[in-house]
Amino acid sequence: MKALPLAKVYQLIEPGPVVLLTTARRGRPNVMTMSWHMMLDFEPPMVGCVVSAGDYSFAALRASRECVIAVPARKLAAKVVKVGNTSGRDIDKFKAFGLTALPASEVQAPLIAECFANLECRVTDTRMVRRYNLFVLEVVAAWIDPKQKNPKTIHHHGYGTFVVDGPLIHLKSRMR
Amino acid sequence: MKALPLAKVYQLIEPGPVVLLTTARRGRPNVMTMSWHMMLDFEPPMVGCVVSAGDYSFAALRASRECVIAVPARKLAAKVVKVGNTSGRDIDKFKAFGLTALPASEVQAPLIAECFANLECRVTDTRMVRRYNLFVLEVVAAWIDPKQKNPKTIHHHGYGTFVVDGPLIHLKSRMR
Repeated sequence: MKALPLAKVYQLIEPGPVVLLTTARRGRPNVMTMSWHMMLDFEPPMVGCVVSAGDYSFAALRASRECVIAVPARKLAAKVVKVGNTSGRDIDKFKAFGLTALPASEVQAPLIAECFANLECRVTDTRMVRRYNLFVLEVVAAWIDPKQKNPKTIHHHGYGTFVVDGPLIHLKSRMR
Repeated sequence: MKALPLAKVYQLIEPGPVVLLTTARRGRPNVMTMSWHMMLDFEPPMVGCVVSAGDYSFAALRASRECVIAVPARKLAAKVVKVGNTSGRDIDKFKAFGLTALPASEVQAPLIAECFANLECRVTDTRMVRRYNLFVLEVVAAWIDPKQKNPKTIHHHGYGTFVVDGPLIHLKSRMR
Protein backbone atom coordinates (compact mmCIF):
# COMPACT_ATOMS: atom_id res chain seq x y z
CA MET A 1 0.00 0.00 0.00
CA LYS A 2 1.25 3.42 -0.96
CA ALA A 3 0.27 6.64 0.82
CA LEU A 4 -2.32 8.71 -1.05
CA PRO A 5 -2.21 12.51 -0.57
CA LEU A 6 -5.21 13.52 1.56
CA ALA A 7 -6.13 16.19 -0.99
CA LYS A 8 -6.99 13.41 -3.47
CA VAL A 9 -9.32 11.45 -1.21
CA TYR A 10 -12.46 13.19 -2.51
CA GLN A 11 -11.77 11.74 -5.97
CA LEU A 12 -12.48 8.30 -4.51
CA ILE A 13 -15.61 9.11 -2.51
CA GLU A 14 -17.34 11.72 -4.69
CA PRO A 15 -18.18 9.24 -7.51
CA GLY A 16 -20.35 7.22 -5.10
CA PRO A 17 -18.80 3.73 -5.01
CA VAL A 18 -20.01 0.99 -2.73
CA VAL A 19 -17.43 0.76 0.06
CA LEU A 20 -16.59 -1.47 2.98
CA LEU A 21 -16.43 0.01 6.47
CA THR A 22 -14.26 -1.68 9.04
CA THR A 23 -14.35 -1.14 12.78
CA ALA A 24 -12.65 -2.73 15.78
CA ARG A 25 -14.04 -3.19 19.26
CA ARG A 26 -12.34 -4.98 22.12
CA GLY A 27 -9.73 -6.22 19.66
CA ARG A 28 -12.29 -7.78 17.33
CA PRO A 29 -12.50 -6.38 13.79
CA ASN A 30 -15.71 -6.25 11.78
CA VAL A 31 -16.72 -5.08 8.33
CA MET A 32 -19.94 -3.88 6.73
CA THR A 33 -21.05 -2.77 3.27
CA MET A 34 -22.05 0.87 2.85
CA SER A 35 -23.08 3.21 0.08
CA TRP A 36 -24.73 6.08 1.91
CA HIS A 37 -21.77 8.43 2.14
CA MET A 38 -20.68 11.81 0.79
CA MET A 39 -17.82 14.27 0.87
CA LEU A 40 -18.23 17.21 3.24
CA ASP A 41 -14.89 18.94 2.69
CA PHE A 42 -11.76 18.59 0.56
CA GLU A 43 -8.85 18.98 2.99
CA PRO A 44 -8.65 17.68 5.51
CA PRO A 45 -11.05 15.30 3.79
CA MET A 46 -14.32 15.12 5.71
CA VAL A 47 -16.87 12.41 4.93
CA GLY A 48 -20.44 11.98 6.09
CA CYS A 49 -21.81 8.44 6.28
CA VAL A 50 -24.96 6.74 7.48
CA VAL A 51 -24.57 3.60 9.58
CA SER A 52 -27.93 2.25 10.67
CA ALA A 53 -28.48 1.84 14.40
CA GLY A 54 -29.48 -1.74 13.58
CA ASP A 55 -26.07 -2.55 12.09
CA TYR A 56 -23.65 -4.38 14.36
CA SER A 57 -20.95 -1.86 13.34
CA PHE A 58 -22.98 1.02 14.78
CA ALA A 59 -22.00 0.41 18.40
CA ALA A 60 -18.35 -0.17 17.51
CA LEU A 61 -18.21 3.02 15.47
CA ARG A 62 -19.85 5.07 18.19
CA ALA A 63 -17.71 3.62 20.97
CA SER A 64 -14.32 3.54 19.21
CA ARG A 65 -14.86 6.70 17.12
CA GLU A 66 -12.63 5.16 14.45
CA CYS A 67 -13.10 3.25 11.22
CA VAL A 68 -11.57 2.49 7.83
CA ILE A 69 -13.36 3.06 4.54
CA ALA A 70 -12.02 0.45 2.12
CA VAL A 71 -12.87 0.77 -1.58
CA PRO A 72 -13.37 -2.50 -3.46
CA ALA A 73 -13.07 -2.97 -7.21
CA ARG A 74 -15.35 -5.05 -9.46
CA LYS A 75 -13.62 -8.36 -8.72
CA LEU A 76 -14.69 -8.11 -5.06
CA ALA A 77 -18.38 -7.54 -5.86
CA ALA A 78 -19.52 -11.01 -4.79
CA LYS A 79 -17.71 -10.66 -1.45
CA VAL A 80 -19.09 -7.15 -0.95
CA VAL A 81 -22.61 -8.54 -1.25
CA LYS A 82 -21.85 -11.38 1.17
CA VAL A 83 -20.49 -8.86 3.67
CA GLY A 84 -23.74 -6.91 3.26
CA ASN A 85 -25.93 -9.99 3.68
CA THR A 86 -24.39 -11.06 7.01
CA SER A 87 -23.78 -9.60 10.46
CA GLY A 88 -20.67 -9.52 12.60
CA ARG A 89 -22.94 -10.58 15.44
CA ASP A 90 -22.98 -14.06 13.92
CA ILE A 91 -19.70 -14.60 12.08
CA ASP A 92 -16.15 -13.39 11.58
CA LYS A 93 -16.62 -11.93 8.11
CA PHE A 94 -12.91 -11.57 7.38
CA LYS A 95 -12.45 -15.30 7.90
CA ALA A 96 -15.73 -16.33 6.29
CA PHE A 97 -15.16 -14.38 3.08
CA GLY A 98 -11.37 -14.48 2.79
CA LEU A 99 -10.68 -10.80 3.42
CA THR A 100 -7.28 -9.90 4.85
CA ALA A 101 -7.19 -7.41 7.73
CA LEU A 102 -4.00 -5.32 7.78
CA PRO A 103 -2.98 -2.99 10.61
CA ALA A 104 -3.73 0.68 9.99
CA SER A 105 -1.34 3.46 10.97
CA GLU A 106 -3.62 5.78 12.95
CA VAL A 107 -6.67 3.76 13.98
CA GLN A 108 -7.46 0.37 15.48
CA ALA A 109 -9.85 -0.60 12.67
CA PRO A 110 -8.06 -2.66 10.00
CA LEU A 111 -7.30 -1.94 6.37
CA ILE A 112 -8.50 -4.55 3.87
CA ALA A 113 -5.62 -5.84 1.75
CA GLU A 114 -7.86 -6.80 -1.20
CA CYS A 115 -9.28 -3.27 -1.57
CA PHE A 116 -7.49 -0.85 -3.89
CA ALA A 117 -7.89 2.08 -1.50
CA ASN A 118 -8.16 2.37 2.29
CA LEU A 119 -9.04 5.52 4.21
CA GLU A 120 -8.33 5.67 7.94
CA CYS A 121 -10.98 7.79 9.63
CA ARG A 122 -11.78 9.34 12.98
CA VAL A 123 -15.32 10.27 13.98
CA THR A 124 -15.30 14.01 14.62
CA ASP A 125 -18.99 14.81 15.05
CA THR A 126 -21.83 12.63 16.35
CA ARG A 127 -24.48 15.32 16.69
CA MET A 128 -26.45 14.02 13.69
CA VAL A 129 -26.32 10.39 14.81
CA ARG A 130 -29.47 10.41 16.88
CA ARG A 131 -31.61 11.93 14.15
CA TYR A 132 -30.05 10.57 10.93
CA ASN A 133 -27.55 7.86 11.97
CA LEU A 134 -25.11 10.24 10.29
CA PHE A 135 -21.48 10.19 11.39
CA VAL A 136 -18.97 12.86 10.37
CA LEU A 137 -15.52 11.40 9.69
CA GLU A 138 -12.14 12.99 9.12
CA VAL A 139 -9.80 10.98 6.91
CA VAL A 140 -6.46 10.99 8.74
CA ALA A 141 -4.47 8.63 6.49
CA ALA A 142 -5.10 7.19 3.03
CA TRP A 143 -3.55 4.27 1.15
CA ILE A 144 -3.70 3.06 -2.40
CA ASP A 145 -2.60 -0.27 -3.87
CA PRO A 146 -0.42 0.60 -6.88
CA LYS A 147 -0.70 -2.99 -8.14
CA GLN A 148 -4.40 -2.54 -8.91
CA LYS A 149 -4.36 -0.55 -12.14
CA ASN A 150 -7.48 1.39 -13.20
CA PRO A 151 -9.78 -0.28 -10.68
CA LYS A 152 -13.45 -0.24 -11.65
CA THR A 153 -15.74 0.50 -8.71
CA ILE A 154 -19.33 -0.62 -8.29
CA HIS A 155 -22.39 1.53 -7.54
CA HIS A 156 -25.51 0.16 -5.90
CA HIS A 157 -28.92 0.63 -7.51
CA GLY A 158 -30.80 -1.43 -4.93
CA TYR A 159 -31.49 -5.11 -4.29
CA GLY A 160 -28.12 -6.40 -5.49
CA THR A 161 -28.09 -4.55 -8.80
CA PHE A 162 -24.84 -2.68 -9.35
CA VAL A 163 -23.45 -0.54 -12.13
CA VAL A 164 -19.78 -1.12 -12.82
CA ASP A 165 -17.63 1.83 -13.89
CA GLY A 166 -17.57 2.22 -17.66
CA PRO A 167 -15.51 4.54 -19.85
CA LEU A 168 -13.78 7.69 -18.59
CA ILE A 169 -14.50 11.02 -20.25
CA HIS A 170 -12.54 14.24 -19.84
CA LEU A 171 -14.16 17.64 -20.17
CA LYS A 172 -12.65 21.04 -19.61
CA SER A 173 -13.83 21.95 -16.15
CA ARG A 174 -13.09 24.52 -13.48
CA MET A 175 -14.70 22.21 -10.95
CA ARG A 176 -12.23 20.70 -8.54
CA MET B 1 -42.58 12.95 -17.27
CA LYS B 2 -44.07 10.06 -15.33
CA ALA B 3 -44.42 9.97 -11.53
CA LEU B 4 -41.78 7.82 -9.82
CA PRO B 5 -42.78 6.13 -6.53
CA LEU B 6 -40.94 7.89 -3.71
CA ALA B 7 -39.73 4.54 -2.37
CA LYS B 8 -37.55 4.19 -5.49
CA VAL B 9 -35.81 7.54 -5.25
CA TYR B 10 -32.82 6.15 -3.34
CA GLN B 11 -31.98 3.97 -6.36
CA LEU B 12 -31.16 7.17 -8.26
CA ILE B 13 -29.12 8.96 -5.60
CA GLU B 14 -27.28 6.08 -3.88
CA PRO B 15 -25.07 5.29 -6.93
CA GLY B 16 -23.52 8.77 -6.70
CA PRO B 17 -24.29 10.44 -10.04
CA VAL B 18 -23.45 14.03 -10.82
CA VAL B 19 -26.73 15.95 -10.60
CA LEU B 20 -28.08 19.38 -11.37
CA LEU B 21 -29.71 21.39 -8.60
CA THR B 22 -32.29 23.99 -9.54
CA THR B 23 -33.58 26.78 -7.34
CA ALA B 24 -35.88 29.76 -7.84
CA ARG B 25 -35.72 33.10 -6.13
CA ARG B 26 -37.92 36.08 -6.87
CA GLY B 27 -39.22 34.26 -9.92
CA ARG B 28 -35.77 33.70 -11.40
CA PRO B 29 -34.62 30.09 -11.82
CA ASN B 30 -31.01 28.99 -11.52
CA VAL B 31 -29.11 25.71 -11.81
CA MET B 32 -25.83 24.39 -10.46
CA THR B 33 -23.83 21.17 -10.76
CA MET B 34 -23.47 19.04 -7.65
CA SER B 35 -22.01 15.70 -6.66
CA TRP B 36 -21.68 15.95 -2.90
CA HIS B 37 -24.94 14.30 -1.89
CA MET B 38 -26.12 11.15 -0.13
CA MET B 39 -29.26 9.34 0.93
CA LEU B 40 -30.27 9.77 4.57
CA ASP B 41 -33.49 7.73 4.59
CA PHE B 42 -35.56 5.58 2.23
CA GLU B 43 -39.14 6.79 2.67
CA PRO B 44 -39.93 9.53 2.70
CA PRO B 45 -36.68 9.86 0.79
CA MET B 46 -34.29 12.16 2.66
CA VAL B 47 -31.17 13.48 0.96
CA GLY B 48 -28.19 15.35 2.37
CA CYS B 49 -26.33 17.70 0.04
CA VAL B 50 -23.51 20.21 0.29
CA VAL B 51 -23.99 23.55 -1.43
CA SER B 52 -21.03 25.83 -0.87
CA ALA B 53 -21.72 29.19 0.71
CA GLY B 54 -19.84 30.67 -2.26
CA ASP B 55 -22.30 29.24 -4.78
CA TYR B 56 -24.96 31.62 -6.06
CA SER B 57 -27.56 28.89 -5.40
CA PHE B 58 -26.76 28.89 -1.68
CA ALA B 59 -28.78 31.99 -0.84
CA ALA B 60 -31.72 30.89 -3.00
CA LEU B 61 -31.76 27.46 -1.38
CA ARG B 62 -31.60 28.88 2.11
CA ALA B 63 -34.23 31.53 1.48
CA SER B 64 -36.72 29.50 -0.56
CA ARG B 65 -36.11 26.18 1.24
CA GLU B 66 -36.94 24.41 -2.02
CA CYS B 67 -35.03 22.88 -4.91
CA VAL B 68 -35.12 20.23 -7.62
CA ILE B 69 -32.46 17.58 -8.05
CA ALA B 70 -32.34 16.75 -11.78
CA VAL B 71 -30.36 13.71 -12.93
CA PRO B 72 -28.63 14.05 -16.30
CA ALA B 73 -27.53 11.18 -18.52
CA ARG B 74 -24.28 10.91 -20.48
CA LYS B 75 -25.48 12.97 -23.43
CA LEU B 76 -25.79 16.04 -21.18
CA ALA B 77 -22.23 15.77 -19.80
CA ALA B 78 -20.88 18.75 -21.74
CA LYS B 79 -23.76 20.95 -20.55
CA VAL B 80 -23.33 19.72 -16.99
CA VAL B 81 -19.73 20.92 -17.03
CA LYS B 82 -20.72 24.28 -18.51
CA VAL B 83 -23.31 24.69 -15.74
CA GLY B 84 -20.57 23.94 -13.22
CA ASN B 85 -18.10 26.37 -14.80
CA THR B 86 -20.45 29.37 -14.64
CA SER B 87 -22.48 31.29 -12.08
CA GLY B 88 -26.10 32.38 -12.11
CA ARG B 89 -24.79 35.73 -10.88
CA ASP B 90 -23.57 36.38 -14.41
CA ILE B 91 -25.85 34.54 -16.82
CA ASP B 92 -29.17 32.77 -17.28
CA LYS B 93 -27.81 29.25 -17.54
CA PHE B 94 -31.05 27.75 -18.85
CA LYS B 95 -30.94 30.10 -21.81
CA ALA B 96 -27.16 29.99 -22.27
CA PHE B 97 -26.96 26.19 -22.37
CA GLY B 98 -30.32 25.27 -23.89
CA LEU B 99 -31.87 23.67 -20.83
CA THR B 100 -35.67 23.69 -20.59
CA ALA B 101 -37.22 24.69 -17.27
CA LEU B 102 -40.56 22.98 -16.63
CA PRO B 103 -42.92 23.83 -13.77
CA ALA B 104 -42.73 21.48 -10.80
CA SER B 105 -45.80 20.32 -8.90
CA GLU B 106 -44.83 21.10 -5.30
CA VAL B 107 -41.99 23.63 -5.43
CA GLN B 108 -41.14 26.85 -7.24
CA ALA B 109 -37.78 25.53 -8.50
CA PRO B 110 -38.11 24.12 -12.02
CA LEU B 111 -37.70 20.61 -13.38
CA ILE B 112 -35.23 20.22 -16.26
CA ALA B 113 -36.89 18.63 -19.29
CA GLU B 114 -33.65 17.17 -20.66
CA CYS B 115 -32.89 15.23 -17.45
CA PHE B 116 -34.20 11.67 -17.18
CA ALA B 117 -35.23 12.12 -13.53
CA ASN B 118 -36.32 15.10 -11.46
CA LEU B 119 -36.80 15.14 -7.69
CA GLU B 120 -38.76 17.97 -6.09
CA CYS B 121 -37.30 18.71 -2.66
CA ARG B 122 -38.03 20.76 0.44
CA VAL B 123 -35.29 21.75 2.86
CA THR B 124 -36.25 20.24 6.21
CA ASP B 125 -33.15 20.86 8.34
CA THR B 126 -30.58 23.64 8.13
CA ARG B 127 -28.78 22.97 11.42
CA MET B 128 -25.69 21.60 9.63
CA VAL B 129 -25.49 24.46 7.13
CA ARG B 130 -23.33 26.74 9.21
CA ARG B 131 -20.69 24.08 9.91
CA TYR B 132 -20.76 21.92 6.77
CA ASN B 133 -22.89 23.75 4.16
CA LEU B 134 -25.02 20.62 4.51
CA PHE B 135 -28.72 20.85 3.72
CA VAL B 136 -31.19 18.09 4.56
CA LEU B 137 -33.85 17.67 1.87
CA GLU B 138 -37.06 15.70 1.75
CA VAL B 139 -38.07 14.53 -1.72
CA VAL B 140 -41.77 15.38 -2.01
CA ALA B 141 -42.37 14.44 -5.66
CA ALA B 142 -40.34 12.51 -8.22
CA TRP B 143 -40.55 12.27 -12.00
CA ILE B 144 -38.94 10.05 -14.58
CA ASP B 145 -38.81 10.43 -18.35
CA PRO B 146 -39.96 7.09 -19.79
CA LYS B 147 -38.58 8.06 -23.21
CA GLN B 148 -35.00 7.89 -21.93
CA LYS B 149 -34.31 4.15 -21.81
CA ASN B 150 -31.45 2.85 -19.63
CA PRO B 151 -29.87 6.25 -19.07
CA LYS B 152 -26.17 6.15 -18.22
CA THR B 153 -25.22 8.57 -15.47
CA ILE B 154 -21.85 10.23 -14.94
CA HIS B 155 -19.71 10.25 -11.78
CA HIS B 156 -17.15 12.95 -11.08
CA HIS B 157 -13.55 12.02 -10.27
CA GLY B 158 -12.31 15.61 -10.11
CA TYR B 159 -11.21 18.27 -12.60
CA GLY B 160 -13.63 17.33 -15.34
CA THR B 161 -12.86 13.62 -15.39
CA PHE B 162 -16.03 11.54 -15.23
CA VAL B 163 -16.76 7.84 -15.23
CA VAL B 164 -19.79 6.88 -17.29
CA ASP B 165 -21.97 3.99 -16.12
CA GLY B 166 -20.80 0.68 -17.54
CA PRO B 167 -22.38 -2.76 -17.38
CA LEU B 168 -25.01 -3.78 -14.82
CA ILE B 169 -24.41 -6.80 -12.62
CA HIS B 170 -26.99 -8.59 -10.48
CA LEU B 171 -26.03 -10.40 -7.29
CA LYS B 172 -28.27 -12.08 -4.78
CA SER B 173 -28.57 -9.53 -2.02
CA ARG B 174 -30.66 -8.90 1.06
CA MET B 175 -29.60 -5.27 0.88
CA ARG B 176 -32.40 -2.94 -0.10
